[in-house]
Amino acid sequence: MRTSIATVSLSGSLTEKLTAASRAGFDGVEIFENDLLAAPLAPEEIRARCADLGLAIELYQPMRDIEAVPKAEFARNLRRARHKFELMRRLGADTVLVCSSVAPTAVDDDALAAEQLSELADLAQDFGIRVAYEALAWGRHVSTYDHAWRIVEAAGHPALGTCLDSFHILSRGSDPKGIEDIPGEKIFFLQLADAPQPAMDVLQWSRHHRCFPGQGGFDVAGLLRHVLRAGYTGPLSLEVFNDVFRQAEAGPTAIDAHRSLLALQEAVGVVELPEPVVPTGIAFTELVTPDAEPVAAVLAALGFVRAARHRGKPVDLWQRGEARILVNTGPAARREGTRLAAIGLETPDPAGAARRAEALLAPVLPRRRAPEDASLEAVAAPDGTELFFCATSRAGLPDWRADFDDLTDADPAEGGRIDHLALTQPWHHFDEAALFHRTVLGLDAQDSVDVADPYGLLRSRAVTNADGTVRIALGVGAAPVDDTVHAQHIALATDDVVAAARRFRAAGGRLLPIPANYYEDLAARYELPADDLETYRDLGILYDRDAGGAFCHCYTETVGRVFFELVQRDPGYAGYGAANASVRLAAQHSHRPAR
Amino acid sequence: MRTSIATVSLSGSLTEKLTAASRAGFDGVEIFENDLLAAPLAPEEIRARCADLGLAIELYQPMRDIEAVPKAEFARNLRRARHKFELMRRLGADTVLVCSSVAPTAVDDDALAAEQLSELADLAQDFGIRVAYEALAWGRHVSTYDHAWRIVEAAGHPALGTCLDSFHILSRGSDPKGIEDIPGEKIFFLQLADAPQPAMDVLQWSRHHRCFPGQGGFDVAGLLRHVLRAGYTGPLSLEVFNDVFRQAEAGPTAIDAHRSLLALQEAVGVVELPEPVVPTGIAFTELVTPDAEPVAAVLAALGFVRAARHRGKPVDLWQRGEARILVNTGPAARREGTRLAAIGLETPDPAGAARRAEALLAPVLPRRRAPEDASLEAVAAPDGTELFFCATSRAGLPDWRADFDDLTDADPAEGGRIDHLALTQPWHHFDEAALFHRTVLGLDAQDSVDVADPYGLLRSRAVTNADGTVRIALGVGAAPVDDTVHAQHIALATDDVVAAARRFRAAGGRLLPIPANYYEDLAARYELPADDLETYRDLGILYDRDAGGAFCHCYTETVGRVFFELVQRDPGYAGYGAANASVRLAAQHSHRPAR
Repeated sequence: MRTSIATVSLSGSLTEKLTAASRAGFDGVEIFENDLLAAPLAPEEIRARCADLGLAIELYQPMRDIEAVPKAEFARNLRRARHKFELMRRLGADTVLVCSSVAPTAVDDDALAAEQLSELADLAQDFGIRVAYEALAWGRHVSTYDHAWRIVEAAGHPALGTCLDSFHILSRGSDPKGIEDIPGEKIFFLQLADAPQPAMDVLQWSRHHRCFPGQGGFDVAGLLRHVLRAGYTGPLSLEVFNDVFRQAEAGPTAIDAHRSLLALQEAVGVVELPEPVVPTGIAFTELVTPDAEPVAAVLAALGFVRAARHRGKPVDLWQRGEARILVNTGPAARREGTRLAAIGLETPDPAGAARRAEALLAPVLPRRRAPEDASLEAVAAPDGTELFFCATSRAGLPDWRADFDDLTDADPAEGGRIDHLALTQPWHHFDEAALFHRTVLGLDAQDSVDVADPYGLLRSRAVTNADGTVRIALGVGAAPVDDTVHAQHIALATDDVVAAARRFRAAGGRLLPIPANYYEDLAARYELPADDLETYRDLGILYDRDAGGAFCHCYTETVGRVFFELVQRDPGYAGYGAANASVRLAAQHSHRPAR
Repeated sequence: MRTSIATVSLSGSLTEKLTAASRAGFDGVEIFENDLLAAPLAPEEIRARCADLGLAIELYQPMRDIEAVPKAEFARNLRRARHKFELMRRLGADTVLVCSSVAPTAVDDDALAAEQLSELADLAQDFGIRVAYEALAWGRHVSTYDHAWRIVEAAGHPALGTCLDSFHILSRGSDPKGIEDIPGEKIFFLQLADAPQPAMDVLQWSRHHRCFPGQGGFDVAGLLRHVLRAGYTGPLSLEVFNDVFRQAEAGPTAIDAHRSLLALQEAVGVVELPEPVVPTGIAFTELVTPDAEPVAAVLAALGFVRAARHRGKPVDLWQRGEARILVNTGPAARREGTRLAAIGLETPDPAGAARRAEALLAPVLPRRRAPEDASLEAVAAPDGTELFFCATSRAGLPDWRADFDDLTDADPAEGGRIDHLALTQPWHHFDEAALFHRTVLGLDAQDSVDVADPYGLLRSRAVTNADGTVRIALGVGAAPVDDTVHAQHIALATDDVVAAARRFRAAGGRLLPIPANYYEDLAARYELPADDLETYRDLGILYDRDAGGAFCHCYTETVGRVFFELVQRDPGYAGYGAANASVRLAAQHSHRPAR
C-alpha cells in the first residue's frame, strides 16, 4: 500500500519535513495547512518540490466547521472553500479533509449536514477534488465514524466520501468492526495514529500534573473556606506531584509554593497582606546591550529620540510620546547580549507595591545607585527581569527621570505608547510567573494558549491590568530546549500600522517578511479589500479579529534576543494575535541571524 | 495557620528539600516515605535537622492498602504498621497518613474497614500517633471524602480522623460543601494541591500525545484489518500530533514513522518482510574507554579474566564464563569517555537478522575491518549503540572470536552470564527504541514503568526474548535535561549475590552503599531473617519480590557512564528491581564522582 505522513507529524520547516519524509521512503504526504501558510514557497513550488522528492500530495487538510450551519454562514464557508480548492489545484492535491464541525453555530441536523456537504462536493468536483469527511472525536454533533458515514451515505455524492482516523475511532472506544459495512471506494482516506492507553486517568493526573494553589483551575480557596468552617485548625500542607517541580531547583520552587499558600490564606481572609497596588502603566522598558548601535538604529527608525542620559551610568533614555526605552551598555550587558532586563511599572504607591511584593516573597533588589540618585523600589520577577515601581511626574514622589539629564528640548514628535511586552520564561517558571504577576502585582492572568512553532510547541499567557495599560505576555517552550532562542519583544501601539510600518521602512528599518501563502489564506478567511491585502503583504502586516474588533501587527528584525512589534488594536480586541504566532515564528526561524 | 509542604513536592535530596522549605518560610513538612528511605540520615538525624531548620514534621506518609482486607493480611499490615510507628517515634512525627486501599484483595465492607482502622488506631495510640484516613480518588472501594468520613465516624476512635486532599476531592467533582458537616477536630490533616482543569480531555490527548502505530496502546492493526476488509485501497497515512516529535529532528522521526508503517503492514499481511531472527543471547558487550585501567580494575574484581586481544585493534576481550566484555581503547573512546558502545547479539542467522533490520530501515553500519577479520553484520540502534549479529562457535558461520588472539589458556574460573543490559535513551528516542527492538530484533516489549529519581522522573521499559537470555532495559529521563548522567549498566547473573559481592569487595572493588533506612523498610515489608538483612545492609544488596520469586541485586561504583550490577534472580521473577531504583538513583547521586 502507499504510505504517507502528515507534515504536522514532523519537526521543522516544510522543506525539512518533505525531505525527511522522502528520505525515509514515504510515497506521499498530507500537507497540513499551517505548514503551507508558514512556508516561503508558493503552492506551485511545493508541488514541484514534492515531485522532485517522489512524494504525492495525498491530502490537503483540514477544512473545519463547514457543515450543518445557518445559510449565511454556509455561503461564507463555500467562499472559503473555493479559495482552498483553487490553492489545491495549484498544489496538485485532489483530496481535502473536512472535519466534523465543532462550531457553536452548528446544528444537530444530519439532513442539513448531508445537504451542505453535497453542495461542497459539487463545488469540489468542478476542481477535480474529492471531499473526505471525518468525525472528530470531539465533534459538536458528529463524533463517531459511523455517524459521519451515515451522513456521507445520505448525501450520496460521488465526490464525497469519508476519512477514517484510528485515533478518533479508538480513543472513543468505538468498535471498528462496523468499518467493514462501508463500501471501500467510499473510504477516501485513512489516517493512522496510536496513543498511550489510557492517556490520562485520574491517577496519572494526580501523579504528574498537580500544581500549587492558584496555578491550576481548581477552586482551592472555596474548598479551604469549607474546611475552616468545619473548624479545622491544623496546618495547610501542599502535596504536589509534578514532573516539572521534580526537576526544578528546590529553592525557588519552595518559595513559589509558600507564596501560593500566602495568597490562598489572603483569599480566605486568615492572613492579611499589604494591599495590592495594581500598576497603571509602563514607565519604561530597559534593554541592556553590549553594543548600543544596532538597538539605537532600530529605535531611531521607529521614531524614538535619544532624549536623556543617566547622570552616573551608561544608560540612555529613548522616548517617543509615552513610550520610554532605556538602553544600558553597562557591565551587565556584556554577559548576555542584548536583552530586556527591566520594566518600570507606573504605580500610584511605589512603597506600598514594594511592601506587598516583599510580603509575597519577591526578592527585593539591592539598591545599586549613587547617593544622589532617586530612590526606586525594585523586585525580581521569577525570570530574573527587574521590576521597578515608578511614579513618573507625580508630586511628592521621587521621579526616576530626575537621574537623567535632558539631551534635547524637542518633544518626541508624535504620541507613542507600549501596547504590550512579551517575555520568554525559563521552562520551569511558567506557572510560577503567572502566579507571581497575579498575586504580587495584582494583574489578571488570562487563559494560556498553545502556539505551534516549527520546532516545538509554545505556551503563552498574558497578564494585564483592567484597562489594558499594562499587558505582559509570558511565553514558554514545551520543554527546556533552546528556549533562549525565543525572543523577548516590545510591542508599540499605533493608530495606523500601515503608516507606521512605512515610516519605519523609509527610515531604513527592516520588517520581518511574511510568506505570500499567509495572505491567500487571509483572503479566504476575511473579506478584506484587495488593496489592503496587497499593502499588508508588502509590509508583512498580520491580521486577526475577535468578537471585539481587529488587530493588525508587524515585526521588526531581531537584535540579540529583542525585537519590536507595531500594533494597531481595536479597543475591543482582547488578544495578542496568537492566531498568527506560528507564521511569525516560522518567519523568524527562517530569517534568524547566524549565531 | 501553620504552613507545610510535602517533601515530594520539591526536587533534590531530602536535605536539599528541607533546607529549601525552611528558607521559603514553611513551618513544617510532610516526610514522604521514599525520601526517607533514600536518605543517608538516620530518623533521629532527620528530626534534629528539621528542628535546627525550625520545621515541624507534620505528617509521615503514606501507609497504603491497610484496611478492609482478610484477617491474615491485616495481621501482616499491623506488623508493618508497628515498624512504621517505631520509625515515627524516632522521627518525632505524630500523624500518619493512611490512603484508602487500592489492593485487589480489599473488600467492599465499610464495617470491616472501620473495625480494622480502629485496631490500627489502637496500636497508633500506644505510640502517641494519630491516624489520618484519606480517600484516594482512585481508591478501590472508598474514593470520596464523605465515604472516608463515614468510615471514620463509624469507627469512633479518638486516634482516628480524616485527611482531606483538595486534589482527590476536586478532581472527582465532589461538592466540598459537605466538609462543613465534619467536626473540625476530626479533620486531622489538610493537603492542598491545584491542577489544570480539565487535565486531559480527548482533545488534549489528540493534540499532544498521539504516537506512531506500535508505540502506544491502540489496536491499530485490528482497525486496519477492518478497513482492508471494507475494500479500502488508498494510502496509509500517519497523522500524529506529538509534543516530542514536534521538537525532534525530522529525519530520524520520519524513519521511525515509516518503520512503524512497515511493521503495521507486516502485521496485517499486506507486506512481506524478511522473517524476524530473535537473538538467543548476548555474545558480548563492548565498552569504549579512553583509559582501560579503571574498567580493567572493576572487571578483574568481578572475576573477569583478560582472555584475548584483537589482532588489529586496541581491543581486549575480558571473559568470565559466558559473559564477555570487550574493552576498546581505540580512537572513538577519546571523544565521549567510558561508555557502552556496542552489543553482540547471539543469533541463529546473522545474515537473516541483518536483512530484516535493513528492510525495517535500521542503519546498516559500514564495515570497518581489516581484510582478514571475520565478517560481522551490524546495524545502529536509535540511541547509536552498535548491534552486531554474531554466531559464537557455530559451525559454518564466521566466529567473531577468530579476530582475537588468546592471551591465556586458563578457563575463566566459574560460570558467568549477562542477566541484562540497561541503556539510557536520548529523550526523543524512547518510544522509538522500544518499537525498534520489538520490530527489528523481534524482542517483546514489556510495560513501561515510572521511577522517581531525586532530580526528576525516569521511565524504563524492558525488551526481552522469550527465555530471558536477552534482556535490555531502556531508560529515559522525563525531559531532555541531564540525561547523560543517567548511566548505562551491565548486570551480571550470579547464583549467590552475597558471595559474589563479598568476593568483589575482597578483590578491592567498591560497592554502592545503600542507606540504612532502606533496610528498616525492608524489615517492615518482608519477614526476612535478621542475619540476611544485616548482610544485605553491609553489602548494599537490594531486595525485591514479585509473584514469581525474589530478586537480590547490588551495584558497583561507576566508571564514566558505566557501572555493573550483580544480580541473583529467581527463575520466576520477571522484573529488574524497579521498586528499588529510586533508592539506587539517590545513592548514585550522592556518591557521584565530581565531574
